[in-house]
Amino acid sequence: MLVTDGRYAVQARQEVRGVDVAITDRKWREVTRRIRHARPARIGFESRHLSVELFRLLSRGSERKWVALQDPVEGLRMRKEEGEVRAMEEAAVAASCALLAVLSRGYRGRTESEVAADLEREMKVRGAEETSFRPIVASGPRAAMPHAVPSSSRIGDADSVIIDFGARKGGYCSDETVTLLPGRPSGSFRKAYDAVRRAQEAGIRAIRPGILCREVDARVRESLDRSGYLKYFVHSTGHGVGLDIHERPSLSLRSKDRLSEGMVVTVEPGVYLPGRGGVRLEDMVRVAGRRGERITYLPKAFPLPG
Amino acid sequence: MLVTDGRYAVQARQEVRGVDVAITDRKWREVTRRIRHARPARIGFESRHLSVELFRLLSRGSERKWVALQDPVEGLRMRKEEGEVRAMEEAAVAASCALLAVLSRGYRGRTESEVAADLEREMKVRGAEETSFRPIVASGPRAAMPHAVPSSSRIGDADSVIIDFGARKGGYCSDETVTLLPGRPSGSFRKAYDAVRRAQEAGIRAIRPGILCREVDARVRESLDRSGYLKYFVHSTGHGVGLDIHERPSLSLRSKDRLSEGMVVTVEPGVYLPGRGGVRLEDMVRVAGRRGERITYLPKAFPLPG
Repeated sequence: MLVTDGRYAVQARQEVRGVDVAITDRKWREVTRRIRHARPARIGFESRHLSVELFRLLSRGSERKWVALQDPVEGLRMRKEEGEVRAMEEAAVAASCALLAVLSRGYRGRTESEVAADLEREMKVRGAEETSFRPIVASGPRAAMPHAVPSSSRIGDADSVIIDFGARKGGYCSDETVTLLPGRPSGSFRKAYDAVRRAQEAGIRAIRPGILCREVDARVRESLDRSGYLKYFVHSTGHGVGLDIHERPSLSLRSKDRLSEGMVVTVEPGVYLPGRGGVRLEDMVRVAGRRGERITYLPKAFPLPG
Repeated sequence: MLVTDGRYAVQARQEVRGVDVAITDRKWREVTRRIRHARPARIGFESRHLSVELFRLLSRGSERKWVALQDPVEGLRMRKEEGEVRAMEEAAVAASCALLAVLSRGYRGRTESEVAADLEREMKVRGAEETSFRPIVASGPRAAMPHAVPSSSRIGDADSVIIDFGARKGGYCSDETVTLLPGRPSGSFRKAYDAVRRAQEAGIRAIRPGILCREVDARVRESLDRSGYLKYFVHSTGHGVGLDIHERPSLSLRSKDRLSEGMVVTVEPGVYLPGRGGVRLEDMVRVAGRRGERITYLPKAFPLPG
């Protein structure tokens, strides 16, 4: 059943099929009443999402057994159906075309916020319902913050710029990161870029059905270790993408999941040099029958023209 | 203390003052360790925000007494300081100017999504860090859904359009709704508009320190009842605004809060005619020494030119 309030009555009638819809301004009372009426022996609930307060409210005085299921849907959502992958591909196309449109107008001398605002707009006019998340546009030393918020800093001629962005289409997210190097990058930034590129390629090459997610993460770390940048890699290698921008599985040190056909994950190593800047390269990769296939497609082997 | 991971190490160093910062990729283990170390007799927690799963993880094997506090900060946040109100005023200015810029370019014949995308962009180039929420642009029959999502419907010459929008500046939200009537609105839409306008004025007039929030809601309902539209009003009169777009107090039937000086609330009656359309008018109002003072300022007594 769907329990909602009057604000969504018209929308629920239009969109919800095959499910009992209750419109009420006392939603939790209605849920309690229906649970009592159904007389279940046990009640499973999403303990990762239900707050302690709501759980207390619902289970107070209940004689049923409440079973904490963590997140029962998350595992089912890991492997994507064809239509889900197609939606993500379409989202990636809208996002990439939007980025190219913004970059082609020239972005040096503009503020990070202006570039981010234009990028959001261009995604939406290309059919994105919304952005997958607030785009990251981080230039110069600010690119040393993996999750920098776009600021009023102007992008300088000598800055490298991390742009991490995604669109949502048909409910599904895209997620991609490019790093723009200046026309004449310093030797050290060129070196960092190449190290991240090699690490990302190693990660993508490792993707195949059956491999442990933490092994993909290990391949990326080994590559960065060989080039001497491992200590500047402060997050994990990637994550699943779907209806949420971050889903299972996680490509990280402690993950216990294995990749299997149909999963869609990001591979996004980065190098962050405090006070100086950063490089991150990210693609979405679908686990196909034997190997990983990129869903996002902007070039990473050579940086986009700065 | 602030416990976060490596992605936020640089930002935490830059922004966090006077608080112990722990950088770790095992955040909850660190929290548990610190709680054990501090040996508190009792541990209060935000039971409205902590999930059942995290609560189980944190309290497992703990000999302390855990006290569910619901949301201990929410009450403190209701009354705003001067700087907080100023931030909301600035957000409202950015949002209103953005709307006027978008409308002045002409919006009839364009899709709801395009108008929404332009509106978001214009807020951001005027210094909004982000939007308070995804703008609602709902035209024609879609305006009968109070929380309609912008669609690819084109705004027709005879459509009325609800635009509900807000910007975030300095962390604080603005929230305002206008209804655009066509050049020659049908008599019934003009009538609905006037009913909503009168109801909104009645609500704003009722605002003063000491009044029960549910009395403000009652004044609005009485006005709509007199004009025969009460049954088409499917939500409550308003809500507090601040760091979150929806905060305490709620101006609704069952609220037990009283208004007091410094609170900032919305007054936003609406009339929704299924299959035909809707009208909603919303302003943010600060509770001043004796009465309510509008923070948002676009005209509501006469609709904006369509």
